[in-house]
Amino acid sequence: MSTSKEHAIILMHCPDQQGIVAAVSRFIDENQGNVISLDQHVDGAMDRFFMRVSFEIDGFLVPKDKLKDYFDTLVAQRYDMTFELHFDSKAPRMALFVSKMSHCLYDILSRWQSGEWKVEIPMIISNHENLERVAKQFDIPYHYLPVTKENKKEVEAQQMALMKEYKCDFAVLARYMQIIPPAFIRQYPNRIINIHHSFLPAFVGAKPYHAAHDRGVKIIGATSHYVTEDLDAGPIIEQDVAKVSHKDEVADLIRKGKDLEKIVLSRAIRQHIMHKLIVFKNKTVIFD
Amino acid sequence: MSTSKEHAIILMHCPDQQGIVAAVSRFIDENQGNVISLDQHVDGAMDRFFMRVSFEIDGFLVPKDKLKDYFDTLVAQRYDMTFELHFDSKAPRMALFVSKMSHCLYDILSRWQSGEWKVEIPMIISNHENLERVAKQFDIPYHYLPVTKENKKEVEAQQMALMKEYKCDFAVLARYMQIIPPAFIRQYPNRIINIHHSFLPAFVGAKPYHAAHDRGVKIIGATSHYVTEDLDAGPIIEQDVAKVSHKDEVADLIRKGKDLEKIVLSRAIRQHIMHKLIVFKNKTVIFD
Amino acid sequence: MSTSKEHAIILMHCPDQQGIVAAVSRFIDENQGNVISLDQHVDGAMDRFFMRVSFEIDGFLVPKDKLKDYFDTLVAQRYDMTFELHFDSKAPRMALFVSKMSHCLYDILSRWQSGEWKVEIPMIISNHENLERVAKQFDIPYHYLPVTKENKKEVEAQQMALMKEYKCDFAVLARYMQIIPPAFIRQYPNRIINIHHSFLPAFVGAKPYHAAHDRGVKIIGATSHYVTEDLDAGPIIEQDVAKVSHKDEVADLIRKGKDLEKIVLSRAIRQHIMHKLIVFKNKTVIFD
Amino acid sequence: MSTSKEHAIILMHCPDQQGIVAAVSRFIDENQGNVISLDQHVDGAMDRFFMRVSFEIDGFLVPKDKLKDYFDTLVAQRYDMTFELHFDSKAPRMALFVSKMSHCLYDILSRWQSGEWKVEIPMIISNHENLERVAKQFDIPYHYLPVTKENKKEVEAQQMALMKEYKCDFAVLARYMQIIPPAFIRQYPNRIINIHHSFLPAFVGAKPYHAAHDRGVKIIGATSHYVTEDLDAGPIIEQDVAKVSHKDEVADLIRKGKDLEKIVLSRAIRQHIMHKLIVFKNKTVIFD
Repeated sequence: MSTSKEHAIILMHCPDQQGIVAAVSRFIDENQGNVISLDQHVDGAMDRFFMRVSFEIDGFLVPKDKLKDYFDTLVAQRYDMTFELHFDSKAPRMALFVSKMSHCLYDILSRWQSGEWKVEIPMIISNHENLERVAKQFDIPYHYLPVTKENKKEVEAQQMALMKEYKCDFAVLARYMQIIPPAFIRQYPNRIINIHHSFLPAFVGAKPYHAAHDRGVKIIGATSHYVTEDLDAGPIIEQDVAKVSHKDEVADLIRKGKDLEKIVLSRAIRQHIMHKLIVFKNKTVIFD
Repeated sequence: MSTSKEHAIILMHCPDQQGIVAAVSRFIDENQGNVISLDQHVDGAMDRFFMRVSFEIDGFLVPKDKLKDYFDTLVAQRYDMTFELHFDSKAPRMALFVSKMSHCLYDILSRWQSGEWKVEIPMIISNHENLERVAKQFDIPYHYLPVTKENKKEVEAQQMALMKEYKCDFAVLARYMQIIPPAFIRQYPNRIINIHHSFLPAFVGAKPYHAAHDRGVKIIGATSHYVTEDLDAGPIIEQDVAKVSHKDEVADLIRKGKDLEKIVLSRAIRQHIMHKLIVFKNKTVIFD
Repeated sequence: MSTSKEHAIILMHCPDQQGIVAAVSRFIDENQGNVISLDQHVDGAMDRFFMRVSFEIDGFLVPKDKLKDYFDTLVAQRYDMTFELHFDSKAPRMALFVSKMSHCLYDILSRWQSGEWKVEIPMIISNHENLERVAKQFDIPYHYLPVTKENKKEVEAQQMALMKEYKCDFAVLARYMQIIPPAFIRQYPNRIINIHHSFLPAFVGAKPYHAAHDRGVKIIGATSHYVTEDLDAGPIIEQDVAKVSHKDEVADLIRKGKDLEKIVLSRAIRQHIMHKLIVFKNKTVIFD
Repeated sequence: MSTSKEHAIILMHCPDQQGIVAAVSRFIDENQGNVISLDQHVDGAMDRFFMRVSFEIDGFLVPKDKLKDYFDTLVAQRYDMTFELHFDSKAPRMALFVSKMSHCLYDILSRWQSGEWKVEIPMIISNHENLERVAKQFDIPYHYLPVTKENKKEVEAQQMALMKEYKCDFAVLARYMQIIPPAFIRQYPNRIINIHHSFLPAFVGAKPYHAAHDRGVKIIGATSHYVTEDLDAGPIIEQDVAKVSHKDEVADLIRKGKDLEKIVLSRAIRQHIMHKLIVFKNKTVIFD
């Protein structure tokens, strides 16, 4: 990876209007940038334009540290555009929150260790001691912060302090069975990824596999989404499903669900790490 | 098909207890029946035993018209068993209820005409005139019974009279956009199959594709179920899903959903026609 | 549909180079066109750029009948581009070729009749008489041209004459169990769509379901592809699969496969009709 | 798990004939066994009967150590039956063979460590040193046995000696990129599970993702199968697939394929561990 070229990635959205693609591509072209990928989407109902473009910045005439400013002035402001600029040379720093179950944690750590993702994992936070041994296997600091009714505020402060101390860019709730407090969520908007063990919006809340079994569904699902202040109602990133039958007891749904959860969560993490997502009005546009 | 052998199919369920399989298989064996298929299921949580067995009745020592009585006395009563007896030589008679959309209707009629199913379709009922031309293409009587607030009771009576007149065994709501009244449902328990255009229990009620689009789901679904007095809450027979993305507008969800709906409904019809289903406590056991 | 606006669709590919998106979008923008969708793809291994763009032509400064010429001169030639121009106001004319099985034919005709596709179906050709009744149901001319070893050349000439007489733009082999002769294929390059009843490249040739059953696969598939002179080796448009088990006999694979075949073929037809496909080096780029 | 009851599992097959289910269920019933599950399958084309039955042996009148003998004499011999008897109290011992890639290995070890499977993993064999650190993370002996043209025979002998030394019941090739020699295979018939990174029988042999990319398929797959002396042609246990598109380069197919491979392999291992599989004539019957 060290020898591969560096790219700039711009994620943008604005009211739909004539000439945006031309303006963006002209900006890149005139400054000697080479477009690697360009995906756009127009949402007709909302009259909104979305675009992701990536280009090589080696040899680009605008210096890297001035790119944000120039793009803002020369393009974004003219089209009333909201945008994010990323460079793929920077590995985002991801905090992991877990409880007792290890399947998502192992899936994430094994991808990280094999180099599948360009990401750093500076620390793991948990309200249980169970998975400390897994953290040790991978040499990652593990912070055991048990949550009770009494200490909620305090733990919240500790968690947010750790996020800062470790310079985490975003957090992943890898089957962390606690509600994230609003102050934390507001600090990391569209930067906390959860995995819910049902096909949302079916079976919101606790014990979705029990609810699915009671209803007699023939398919179960898992949903990864950004955490918002509304429980299980944030923007959906990924979903997948598996067939089940009358033979499957609750324990079988839980077992089959684990495989869904880990794959769906890891796919969502990848989209986030690679800056393929735009969130707008509680929905995601994913340029995959 | 005319030369193939006739089979008896027994669907049964009872409290779980030792020796049921032995008793049923001994009954068939001692009377010279040849078991073609035998599937059983024990629901541990409910402590309930379910079984489907089919066997050739040619040469069976118990006469066909006494089989129900003998099985009842010699097996069913001893195990407190609920059972149904069917013969696959009899083609069930299926009434179709439609509104304006043709995709499910064509899918059903083309399977019927090509001989894929052993079923008779004596009539079609609709609250719109639109699909009369389709009924004519296949030479099936079409009864146009528009439903208004004022004539509901009357139409209900007409529909039930037609069901009797045509000796229909069961009804299929092939995107029939009307509520079936309780009296009708009680007359045909587990004999009215509906297709709901969502992945139940998500998006119960009207306009599920609009709701799915608003929520920003990444997968849509369709669900076939038996109609009960609780709207969209009857026993689920079949479900399937399709991936969607931010590119899909409501019209795309509707279009993609149609392919799901017709396939899911036709699979459910097949299970019903072939007597592969047992309904118990609002869930289905499907021996497929 | 009559009131919706007319769009131009340009499908193009050329050697990858800097500035293509800018050039194309500038051409549209400067002539007052409003881009509706723009999708591009760079194949790194082949160093090739692919793009599909659609824009409203109402009010476009270049007249419709000169658009091809202008785009060629002002854009395409400068980038060594191969391109196709389509207008979505024109319904392509599709010939259907069938043998004895009706499932794909019904699926196609019911979509056509319900207005799901903007397409005309001027005629059906078959080597059997079986499906003439289906053609009559939908009032479409049916040409029964039985193929024997002796009359192959003659039938081929008749088929090609009919294609011309009915002004067909492309042909769909809806389970037409005959080889299409090379001369026919060369006349309609990437304009003959076939459905093969296996997951290509597994089980090329005749009786794929028998071969799948012999091999004991756990999944079967269907593949739609453009017909080339190499049997079952043309560019793949769509594939889908279904789970099977040891319970499924060959007849079950055939039955389950029919549902795959009709859905996969119809999806491929839609992509073709809507000009979403570019074929290059025996592969398809699909901007869906 | 320690408090749950012990079960006997009998897997059997024989020529199809009248009365087998009755005979087996009578044997269990008369000896006070309680059937937990019973699945049977008749392969009509081969005229062969297959069955899996499990029952509680606590209180069974035939002593555990005589069960095999009694069943053989009283049932199996009379029906010309081939059968296997297992007790679920015994955890099978599984050897793992790996090369350089860690995704399947991590998936297996994390399931084992979380107690998802009742299995023991006494050792890992590899022809590379890369994954020794993973073995250390989980405290499992790691035998590095590099394979060259010259030492093949010797390594084969070492591997087989290790299998015996560690009392391994079966082996799993978790992306072990070497051919298993015939002598080894004959020692462990239907006891060596491989994962092939394609949808067999498509793309047999080396570099299947490259071949899939060349062919332009729209779906990739993975296949787990028992190893036989014919390369990639053994009985298929599990298969699954994932959609791909023109956007996916070979590296993307490899990445997406890894998720398929690990899930498909782990499902196959589970079926093997739980004795849900019967192999007959190079095909599997799976009672799941």
